[in-house]
Amino acid sequence: MTEIDAPPHPFDAAIALTPTADDRIQGRTRPEYANMVGPFGGVTAAALLRAVQQHPDRLGDPISLTVNYAAPVADGDFDITARAARTNRTNQHWLLELTQNGVVTTTATAVFGIRRDTWSDTELDMPTAPPPEAVPLQDFPDFIAWARNYEMRFVEGAVPDQDSGEHPDSTTTLWVRDTPARPLDFPALTALCDVFYPRVFLRRGRYMAAGTISLTVYFHADAEEIAAQGEDHILGTARTHRFSRGYFDQTARMWGRDGTLLASTHQLVYFKD
Amino acid sequence: MTEIDAPPHPFDAAIALTPTADDRIQGRTRPEYANMVGPFGGVTAAALLRAVQQHPDRLGDPISLTVNYAAPVADGDFDITARAARTNRTNQHWLLELTQNGVVTTTATAVFGIRRDTWSDTELDMPTAPPPEAVPLQDFPDFIAWARNYEMRFVEGAVPDQDSGEHPDSTTTLWVRDTPARPLDFPALTALCDVFYPRVFLRRGRYMAAGTISLTVYFHADAEEIAAQGEDHILGTARTHRFSRGYFDQTARMWGRDGTLLASTHQLVYFKD
Repeated sequence: MTEIDAPPHPFDAAIALTPTADDRIQGRTRPEYANMVGPFGGVTAAALLRAVQQHPDRLGDPISLTVNYAAPVADGDFDITARAARTNRTNQHWLLELTQNGVVTTTATAVFGIRRDTWSDTELDMPTAPPPEAVPLQDFPDFIAWARNYEMRFVEGAVPDQDSGEHPDSTTTLWVRDTPARPLDFPALTALCDVFYPRVFLRRGRYMAAGTISLTVYFHADAEEIAAQGEDHILGTARTHRFSRGYFDQTARMWGRDGTLLASTHQLVYFKD
Repeated sequence: MTEIDAPPHPFDAAIALTPTADDRIQGRTRPEYANMVGPFGGVTAAALLRAVQQHPDRLGDPISLTVNYAAPVADGDFDITARAARTNRTNQHWLLELTQNGVVTTTATAVFGIRRDTWSDTELDMPTAPPPEAVPLQDFPDFIAWARNYEMRFVEGAVPDQDSGEHPDSTTTLWVRDTPARPLDFPALTALCDVFYPRVFLRRGRYMAAGTISLTVYFHADAEEIAAQGEDHILGTARTHRFSRGYFDQTARMWGRDGTLLASTHQLVYFKD
């Protein structure tokens, strides 16, 4: 925030959490991040990560996060409990539950840790893509509120329309950033890891019931590398290995424009055709 | 087992669990599956999956599993608590903790569910590899006990020896199965997902301290497809995207010899060079 009286960015409002007692933390869903049923899964994941970040016992920065979407989060207040199951010298294992009226909607585990200097190498090449300025903006259908908070420029695998028909592969590559622009940090990166619409829509050329069951994020970048992205676009690329009997996986990588592999992220998705 | 008096397969002995009271279940580490420090992570993951499988409230078959290795499991008895955080019509979300003397060493979440017939497709091609019979066996160093329970035939990226030197990429592809042979099931497949030695050994051409922090398995195959593999080899292929500041990821796929993509699996690993 540059001005004291400016309202917070919608994303910061959506992940704002208030500690109440012990390990309980309160938040509230925001209409800006609504999905078809309940909020955008990415913002729920970001709120869970934020709950650990602001916990007084927290050690280091996010290393990995797994979020299990057990049931839709209803509009309104929610509680998060965050418990450090084990604290080691350089890392810490967290168990989290998001509840509404005492009923679990979401569970998560997180590993936080301290990074040390070691031999390092990014083995993968960043996909070639024209710069974001050269790729047109694509609007999501109006009824998907959360997508209005992201500037998406699809390099391949754009959202299908009613004339799209089937597509031979499930790959989507896009430039993406928050809108209004916001400096990248661990929670924003977490939410961006869930920005890909369901791969089955692309393959089948149409919408159907689909929802993430389990999402994992591995944070490759440290806080400094993430901050270095500023408000710039990042390049995300996602695909599925197998669609089978009501479920499919998605594996994705999130790249900084400067070629830094920020995160790799995986999910298992339910669908009904 | 074909003979009533035959001892159980070492793997079945290693994941044998006895319910005690409420949601508590007891197991015991087996020397056959010892690793450098504590048991092979794959067998711990398999025991956690087994704990849900044999729970009286269990709904359906494994869909996804995430195991967080918070601390080494000591030789001896351990307790598992398994709690269904949420049961829906077609799926169920589990929280698990493995403790020794009341101290958490391992946490996990699992999603079980019922599969339905839908449009299905495996988008990825199985890697080309000579048949297992044409690929020589490679023994692991003697001090790694658990590896003696797996027949490994490396197609590429074999375990480095002291003359190996650095390797340009981190890919290992191997044919693998239990030895003595044992019909494939969900727990055995889970353990096989952790069969790859740390990718940093391959890149650097030497051993160093390294251990899995978090392991995720997505089960693409149903029980029937897994049973159809029988005692045959499966083909696993694994690689890393980025090594950075003491951590690296590993992403792998496990294929049936018949071309069925059985599972995709991901992990985050700690290393110290």
